Amino acid sequence: MTEKTVSFAAQGTTEQVEEGHVFAPKFDASGLVTCVVADAWTGEVLMVAHMNAEALGMTIETGEAWYFSRSRQRLWKKGETSGHIQRVIEMRVDCDQDALLLRVEQDGGAACHTGRQSCFYRAVPLREKAGRTVSLEFRNADKKFDPAKVYGTASAKKD
Amino acid sequence: MTEKTVSFAAQGTTEQVEEGHVFAPKFDASGLVTCVVADAWTGEVLMVAHMNAEALGMTIETGEAWYFSRSRQRLWKKGETSGHIQRVIEMRVDCDQDALLLRVEQDGGAACHTGRQSCFYRAVPLREKAGRTVSLEFRNADKKFDPAKVYGTASAKKD
Repeated sequence: MTEKTVSFAAQGTTEQVEEGHVFAPKFDASGLVTCVVADAWTGEVLMVAHMNAEALGMTIETGEAWYFSRSRQRLWKKGETSGHIQRVIEMRVDCDQDALLLRVEQDGGAACHTGRQSCFYRAVPLREKAGRTVSLEFRNADKKFDPAKVYGTASAKKD
Repeated sequence: MTEKTVSFAAQGTTEQVEEGHVFAPKFDASGLVTCVVADAWTGEVLMVAHMNAEALGMTIETGEAWYFSRSRQRLWKKGETSGHIQRVIEMRVDCDQDALLLRVEQDGGAACHTGRQSCFYRAVPLREKAGRTVSLEFRNADKKFDPAKVYGTASAKKD
């Protein structure tokens, strides 16, 4: 990993942050912003990930998605093991600039490390009494690839 | 605000969390899960918000979206001031169960407190040298309502 420092503009007033042209991402206490990743052409939400300043800088510079793994505490390029990279067609930032939306072309047809197209392959039933055990329903959950073949048994390589 | 306690199943093994039917949301150190909110019919990503266990319980029970405001540190029902409530058509959970996707019908045609349909009304240019001041481009940024008329000057009422 490189150790270069990437910095972005500091946040100004609420008016500047919400109505201005200056990109001033708000990193949380861990130095991360939340990224929603959607398929650029169908709009389907594929995954949620996080970026630190370096991952954000790499993504802006290369047009391919880089993230920061909270579980592994390191920078990772999406698809670095699987080859399933994400080409970023458009990046958007939200009103208070603490979340990003990436519209991507997903190589391999699957964003999820379980082999599915989207990480959101199970539905939570609604209008249930909360606190009881809620049973999830699988939807669009067919696997586009076999994780064991792509990643082997090394969970650290799941990208 | 009520003070009732809502609890969900604890997370089991990775296999159980990723491939199982038990809903076991993983709340972060602040007791929150990230929620991506998309328009149920167009798929457009409208906003990102957070839920604590109580907000999640209220949403599941009522089928209308409740969140936890990090800035105000309180439970809030989306639209409680503006009337722009969100009817949840479908809720999904991701592979490691630390993020939710809500597909909603958005009342008033605008999810953003700035009056826009989506909070993601500005694009971040790509393939720029990172670290320089990045200039955002407004896209689909017309206002569906006037925030001053809907909320007055009380920022605490922006929902």
